[in-house]
Amino acid sequence: MIQRYMLTIEYNGQGYAGWQRQPNVPSIQQEIEEAIFKFCRQEVLVTVAGRTDAGVHALGQIAHVDFAPFSKPMDEFSIMKAINAHLRPRLISILGVESVPCDFHARFDAVNKLYRYRILNRHAFPTLDSGHVWHVQRPLNVEAMHDAAQCLLGHHDFSSFRGADCQAKTPMRTLDRIDVFALDRDEHGGCEVIVEAEARSFIHHQVRNMVGTLSWVGLGKWSIDNLRDAFDARDRTKAGPSAPADGLYLVHIDYPS
Amino acid sequence: MIQRYMLTIEYNGQGYAGWQRQPNVPSIQQEIEEAIFKFCRQEVLVTVAGRTDAGVHALGQIAHVDFAPFSKPMDEFSIMKAINAHLRPRLISILGVESVPCDFHARFDAVNKLYRYRILNRHAFPTLDSGHVWHVQRPLNVEAMHDAAQCLLGHHDFSSFRGADCQAKTPMRTLDRIDVFALDRDEHGGCEVIVEAEARSFIHHQVRNMVGTLSWVGLGKWSIDNLRDAFDARDRTKAGPSAPADGLYLVHIDYPS
Repeated sequence: MIQRYMLTIEYNGQGYAGWQRQPNVPSIQQEIEEAIFKFCRQEVLVTVAGRTDAGVHALGQIAHVDFAPFSKPMDEFSIMKAINAHLRPRLISILGVESVPCDFHARFDAVNKLYRYRILNRHAFPTLDSGHVWHVQRPLNVEAMHDAAQCLLGHHDFSSFRGADCQAKTPMRTLDRIDVFALDRDEHGGCEVIVEAEARSFIHHQVRNMVGTLSWVGLGKWSIDNLRDAFDARDRTKAGPSAPADGLYLVHIDYPS
Repeated sequence: MIQRYMLTIEYNGQGYAGWQRQPNVPSIQQEIEEAIFKFCRQEVLVTVAGRTDAGVHALGQIAHVDFAPFSKPMDEFSIMKAINAHLRPRLISILGVESVPCDFHARFDAVNKLYRYRILNRHAFPTLDSGHVWHVQRPLNVEAMHDAAQCLLGHHDFSSFRGADCQAKTPMRTLDRIDVFALDRDEHGGCEVIVEAEARSFIHHQVRNMVGTLSWVGLGKWSIDNLRDAFDARDRTKAGPSAPADGLYLVHIDYPS
């Protein structure tokens, strides 16, 4: 009589220690599990597709959760409304609830994840986007970043971009797409540099470490050969810095239809 | 020896009583004038093109300001850097500084202003856009809103959309463009409804009152004829509600080249 549901979740990661429940710090997971408890008195485990770090945002995070029968029958929209009502005024929203077969798994069944990284590239400090972008003041060469990024495509050992806390069994990953492009912001030279990366899965801090390293290419500090050497070294200390969490968004996750 | 400069300004209106300096409340004008004083010890008056209300944002506000000679010569970029340094950590940034003739006037010389209004149209509460959009939960008919809005175009008496505090001598204004369109947000039916309005000048609360009234058309509560009747009545009590400040952005101001 258990029914599994897939949740699509949007959140502002500022002020949270990340997705995962941890003692003594606020987490997205805990907020959602508590909101669910408040509405139906069920203690549930919400299993997520991508455990985002502290400060990382999500536009389309996916999770699954099992519910025992409710005291009165509830459709998907009513479940969404009820969870959202109890999440207020937190900056976490359930965008969709969908019943799925009981063998659906948010993480193991994911076939593709899209991350987006936003860099505000201008002298002036962010105002409306404060906490939502990485602010880089010196001009970035977006074409050079895009060209260099292409050498990261394919199946590789990503140890040079692997966070220290990474719990993955292997640093091998397949990067299917990485694009760097600019969006005009104003007539004073300000632009937003976007990095989009797609893969079935990423290792810990992979996107932020790739973006931080690519910023060295964009600033003219590194050539594409420097990037390739750092990548080939399979050594985190040989690559560039980690870009801050503020600019990172988990955008979309695909499942087999 | 006085030099006049044009400032392009971006700000997050949340937490401010609006542009204009007022006793005992924070204003954008006061923050900028104080930042200027801190960098060059000159007490200046910053004259703005469009005095935005409490909570209203700007992407391209324009102002002018006169400086006496600095203790050492400073170029435009250095002036911008100096003001921005003293504005931190406030969510106000100078995007550009340009020297202009001493008869340039930010308000009187403006020939066109573009305002944008953002409505988050979905059930789920805003997270990343909290404070930056008006949240309307029931679906809006965007085409009906756009079609109805066209009857506001041209030279008219806008008394039906005039704020109570309006200090303009006349309610006559010429609306040159008003467009309503939707941007897809997610696969769960969520979208953003954008209203863009252009005119040489607007009366107090005009955009917010037009948007609030158009929302009644979008919700199916009003027909285009209801809107036209309310407009013709030249009576604020005959039109719809005022949309909240959160969703309003002063985007761009044009001057004769």
